[in-house]
Amino acid sequence: MASEYYSQDIHGPYQLFELGDFEFESGAKVRNLTLAFATFGALAPDKSNAILFPTWYSGSSKILEQAYIGPGRALDPSKYFIILVNQIGNGLSSSPSNAPAPFNAAAFPQPSIGDDVRAQYELVTRHFGLTRLALVLGGSMGAQQSWEWAVRYPEFVARVAPIAGTAKETLHNRLLVETFIDAIAADPAFNGGWYAPGAVHRGLRAHAKLFAASGFSPVLFNTRGWSGFGFTTTEDFVTGFVANHFLPQDPNNLLLLARKWRDGDVSRHAGGDLKAALGRIKAKTAVVAIDEDAFFPLADLAAEQALIPNSQLKRISSVWGHLALFGVDPGFNAAIDAILGELLATPA
Amino acid sequence: MASEYYSQDIHGPYQLFELGDFEFESGAKVRNLTLAFATFGALAPDKSNAILFPTWYSGSSKILEQAYIGPGRALDPSKYFIILVNQIGNGLSSSPSNAPAPFNAAAFPQPSIGDDVRAQYELVTRHFGLTRLALVLGGSMGAQQSWEWAVRYPEFVARVAPIAGTAKETLHNRLLVETFIDAIAADPAFNGGWYAPGAVHRGLRAHAKLFAASGFSPVLFNTRGWSGFGFTTTEDFVTGFVANHFLPQDPNNLLLLARKWRDGDVSRHAGGDLKAALGRIKAKTAVVAIDEDAFFPLADLAAEQALIPNSQLKRISSVWGHLALFGVDPGFNAAIDAILGELLATPA
Repeated sequence: MASEYYSQDIHGPYQLFELGDFEFESGAKVRNLTLAFATFGALAPDKSNAILFPTWYSGSSKILEQAYIGPGRALDPSKYFIILVNQIGNGLSSSPSNAPAPFNAAAFPQPSIGDDVRAQYELVTRHFGLTRLALVLGGSMGAQQSWEWAVRYPEFVARVAPIAGTAKETLHNRLLVETFIDAIAADPAFNGGWYAPGAVHRGLRAHAKLFAASGFSPVLFNTRGWSGFGFTTTEDFVTGFVANHFLPQDPNNLLLLARKWRDGDVSRHAGGDLKAALGRIKAKTAVVAIDEDAFFPLADLAAEQALIPNSQLKRISSVWGHLALFGVDPGFNAAIDAILGELLATPA
Repeated sequence: MASEYYSQDIHGPYQLFELGDFEFESGAKVRNLTLAFATFGALAPDKSNAILFPTWYSGSSKILEQAYIGPGRALDPSKYFIILVNQIGNGLSSSPSNAPAPFNAAAFPQPSIGDDVRAQYELVTRHFGLTRLALVLGGSMGAQQSWEWAVRYPEFVARVAPIAGTAKETLHNRLLVETFIDAIAADPAFNGGWYAPGAVHRGLRAHAKLFAASGFSPVLFNTRGWSGFGFTTTEDFVTGFVANHFLPQDPNNLLLLARKWRDGDVSRHAGGDLKAALGRIKAKTAVVAIDEDAFFPLADLAAEQALIPNSQLKRISSVWGHLALFGVDPGFNAAIDAILGELLATPA
């Protein structure tokens, strides 16, 4: 199942960049770390128009392309050279599901958000020869990676737009992610990560239900906001939309991503001092919060934004809550384009 | 485990009222339905000072006594005759855990909120000879029972205070409760409800974690609001406070309660028309919402309150979220006393 899902047919076209052996922050070594990426538009002769956009939890470059890129959008390929990069573990880049034995499946080492960004740095410098990015943006775990970029490589990032994601995981968000992890790992068929293909579907269905219960806003359910997409009941929507998204994915991949999400924390660049870490940022910064987001509440993003020089807090309201990121809400899409357009027009 | 927990030592003193055979709304018959209750104060000669207070999910009359009753509190036994009644399935009243075979455990029939209130009506009319209640109040599932009282027996209820609970379950709340149910039922040791004592502890621990993630507010975790109670980490709090509460309880009892919660709906008294059902209420009504409540959001309670004649919406803020009901927040306790005191002082 998983190998058919993580394919050029479904997620392509994408290209591969091979980094060779790569050491994670934990000290673990990955053999021939490979990043899958897709590009849109052309790099300007002065290389000033490059945008980097990493993926979120359980997503690939394909959904970013479909939801954010196009003529007339803020991310217009006629103006910008846009690099969509798949994070480690998402099934297209190096992952438990595609690594050769013996470092496959449950034996694939756990990376951090920092490892993603270090690998992406190799991609943009060695493969594309860039010295600066006009914009780094991302939603959710993509926001975590955007934060990491702006703190780790402050001179490299001209503008940054973390959308619906925090620089340092809150204790509550860590707890929420733990419940997602548990839902998969508690399925007896999971068997410590050594399962038969498709065997963990009960765990994935439970995970989908938890994800749905907090990923969208209560109002979406109570007003049957999904009926415009042809869903009839809560169960029909959760199964047909959310479980449908997760069921073809690999359980070890999702767990690796979830643990990476849970442990996101830029403050380690300043010995645990979040204010000092965020104070390193030189990029023009637009922190984007979704008012109805139960994964990354407005208050948490506002508290981080307040610590950043040259930053603005931008709010978007959507009954789709956190999962407005998917591009399902035209109001959200218009609002995010306005915010990104304004940020890109700001000299930096 | 469960039989030691559901005892006079831990939850008493309480008394038992035996109703004999009792037919649930589903048509199922319970043999010798028994309600456990505790009373405080003395019934006035004109019987005008009786208050009924049913329990919430996983709670007993003991926590209501500890958190709400006392000299100087709104529910002062020197003024009122207060009846705390344990809902069906809570382990003290008739429940899967205490019913004799063959209608024990998973074979105990599923009651509704309406069945609770019909049985409680027998208690207050036949056992206490009452013709009217000065106040019916309750939190969470206790609120559901309060709503049912006010709609089903409008002449009997002078005042009603549903706290942090809806008259009709929203689709989102139903989904949330389903995730609680699944967490227990998915434990292989649950075995369709025929488990060995203590065997389902993994399911109960998973259930506790889900309950904690949405039952309290994110701010409680992010500010370590539980540190004043001696807890050190999120895990320490979730295990020491929340899992500690659920682990001694019977899984079949909790599932029965959760299904009853999920299906709460007073609109069935008016053919599904919620406005018509709530229009039946004659009680002076104080709908109490907790601003940070993720189980029963303010917006949902406000929408119901707007449909009720002679009603007021009262708001309380607490970082403890829904579980401020437990009496852990002095600010909540003072606020609820003020609201109840004002309601009790209103002629009705």
